[in-house]
Amino acid sequence: MYSVCVRDHFMIAHSFRGEVFGPAQKLHGATYVVDVEFRRKELDPDGIVVDIGRATEELNSILSGLNFQNLDEVAEFKGQNTTTEFLARVIFDRMVASIGKGDLGPNASGLTAMKVTLNESHVAWAAYEGAL
Amino acid sequence: MYSVCVRDHFMIAHSFRGEVFGPAQKLHGATYVVDVEFRRKELDPDGIVVDIGRATEELNSILSGLNFQNLDEVAEFKGQNTTTEFLARVIFDRMVASIGKGDLGPNASGLTAMKVTLNESHVAWAAYEGAL
Amino acid sequence: MYSVCVRDHFMIAHSFRGEVFGPAQKLHGATYVVDVEFRRKELDPDGIVVDIGRATEELNSILSGLNFQNLDEVAEFKGQNTTTEFLARVIFDRMVASIGKGDLGPNASGLTAMKVTLNESHVAWAAYEGAL
Amino acid sequence: MYSVCVRDHFMIAHSFRGEVFGPAQKLHGATYVVDVEFRRKELDPDGIVVDIGRATEELNSILSGLNFQNLDEVAEFKGQNTTTEFLARVIFDRMVASIGKGDLGPNASGLTAMKVTLNESHVAWAAYEGAL
Amino acid sequence: MYSVCVRDHFMIAHSFRGEVFGPAQKLHGATYVVDVEFRRKELDPDGIVVDIGRATEELNSILSGLNFQNLDEVAEFKGQNTTTEFLARVIFDRMVASIGKGDLGPNASGLTAMKVTLNESHVAWAAYEGAL
Amino acid sequence: MYSVCVRDHFMIAHSFRGEVFGPAQKLHGATYVVDVEFRRKELDPDGIVVDIGRATEELNSILSGLNFQNLDEVAEFKGQNTTTEFLARVIFDRMVASIGKGDLGPNASGLTAMKVTLNESHVAWAAYEGAL
Repeated sequence: MYSVCVRDHFMIAHSFRGEVFGPAQKLHGATYVVDVEFRRKELDPDGIVVDIGRATEELNSILSGLNFQNLDEVAEFKGQNTTTEFLARVIFDRMVASIGKGDLGPNASGLTAMKVTLNESHVAWAAYEGAL
Repeated sequence: MYSVCVRDHFMIAHSFRGEVFGPAQKLHGATYVVDVEFRRKELDPDGIVVDIGRATEELNSILSGLNFQNLDEVAEFKGQNTTTEFLARVIFDRMVASIGKGDLGPNASGLTAMKVTLNESHVAWAAYEGAL
Repeated sequence: MYSVCVRDHFMIAHSFRGEVFGPAQKLHGATYVVDVEFRRKELDPDGIVVDIGRATEELNSILSGLNFQNLDEVAEFKGQNTTTEFLARVIFDRMVASIGKGDLGPNASGLTAMKVTLNESHVAWAAYEGAL
Repeated sequence: MYSVCVRDHFMIAHSFRGEVFGPAQKLHGATYVVDVEFRRKELDPDGIVVDIGRATEELNSILSGLNFQNLDEVAEFKGQNTTTEFLARVIFDRMVASIGKGDLGPNASGLTAMKVTLNESHVAWAAYEGAL
Repeated sequence: MYSVCVRDHFMIAHSFRGEVFGPAQKLHGATYVVDVEFRRKELDPDGIVVDIGRATEELNSILSGLNFQNLDEVAEFKGQNTTTEFLARVIFDRMVASIGKGDLGPNASGLTAMKVTLNESHVAWAAYEGAL
Repeated sequence: MYSVCVRDHFMIAHSFRGEVFGPAQKLHGATYVVDVEFRRKELDPDGIVVDIGRATEELNSILSGLNFQNLDEVAEFKGQNTTTEFLARVIFDRMVASIGKGDLGPNASGLTAMKVTLNESHVAWAAYEGAL
């Protein structure tokens, strides 16, 4: 199994609902350093897992849709705790859509799995991974 | 598959028995920066993998039982090489017990796997992972 | 010159005023991983720069006053852009006050300089340093 | 499942063929920080996954065969894009051969899987992993 | 004293002349992860050290002039060992020129010092710093 | 001002005397990841700050004298708390002696300053720096 990973980041405000979140129930924010790992069984004809240039651009484009937002006011996330693990899934789903539309190139159809990790501090991170 | 990881550290003295360890057969020590990764298939009703506050406290509590010890004198480890990989398993087992006792909250019963990694320097680490 | 550094983090929401900030003029947020470095010419009688336990506790206490806040609503910062470099200075000043009150122990009076660094992502940080 | 990982690095020049590589079609170079992770189900009689001393030496020996080379002129890689993911596989295969020859000690025959990761910058890495 | 730092990277091929370089006399290459730190005594009217957006763009622009090059064939570096420390100075001088031309905004004239660090592996880096 | 830094690590056991150390008064241990930074005003005739190969070897040699030791039993440190900041000074002094003996090459006489940093965990480090 081969894998390639690219990294970028975004910065948002949000608040959580539920006692379990303690002081994080207040409006606060976070920097998320995002790693997206693409996996496949065999390399494509160019000898790569994915076009790393396109993957980087697509990740940047996906994060631009979240960057500098107050997630409490984003209609799509209404009534949802935008936890780190939840946001990892959001980015995973958006990247899956990008692959489906061909934004990572035709050979990206050979990708078999993906993992999205959001590093939120030097002591905590969350991730979502799944088959494609 | 979702995952959440928390980090803490502890510092111990120990020695190893066996030629394979070379100079590490002498009493020496290590700082272990510990990552504990919790995994589950679906998020709980709060939208999380695990209560990260409780997970952090529980990890701190488990490491407090090891921190500033000479492991050569800990009865439980008698006759055992307390290698990095062995200690990863010890912490894994203790965290499993904590989950069983409900110390990470009732929803932690939905966790399906865990991985404990001990970073011992900038060039070496060891881990133990398993299903729950 | 000797130095000792301790690390912790906090997570806040804020917005900036001024064209130079572009999309960061919207309410967003950040995780700041904070390094506080203490300096002195000679070690104290215990052979240390500062009591690292007390320094860690004091940093945690100072950051607790900022953590999980919307800085736009903090009276003290009214009319002020709470940039990373500005916040580094705020933490610097609060630690200076802590040293003055003796919260880092009597020997902390021998400290001669301090540097506070706020890491805001994997590609940017800001700092404030000064003599004591 | 237990794992142990060791780290080293090498520095090479190379160029790529194919439009997908853009400016990387020109002769350029890279530092690769290499992580080799060894996995096994149970620890060996010494309480370890692998002799970390031997693993480190063997990795250094394998990387010495690549370090300070212009990979475009290495006969073995003729007509091949020496991408990060491809090189991860090359190092994987060479380490498999080392294990087969007994260079990591007799107990290394109990290893069940391995993963080789090449970190090429602060924002990209690639890996190859497989069963043994 | 305030400081702000931004990070980017570039990948080049080169060779060195002189026995001191050993095997690095052969054509090889490197990834350099570059940190540029800007310093000033007081914040500008926006409450910043420098426009971090412009600083990031300017660094990217400067590195684009070096990225994916064989430095042995760059006329400007003829007869010169393009060591890490030498390249740190090159980037320092180019950023000084950018500041002089106003590319970092008018307030950048208040910068008093700068440091450029090139991280070449997990075990080595070099830097050049100076007053402005 | 130019600088070059090399990194290595060592692992020791020790205990401290004095209430300020709390539980660290017990025999425990640490991994220290060591950065040694060499500084000079102008590059030497080879275009370098110091022979990085020799600097790396010399650092390794100095750390070998400490690695895998119980510092409580080292005669030289009798009656001394071997704190992180104290050990930074010890390594500084030994490297100064190495430079004086010519072990880093004749051009190392042009070095003007040095800084030794000991990273003891992901949340703490200490350093000693001085002129040469």
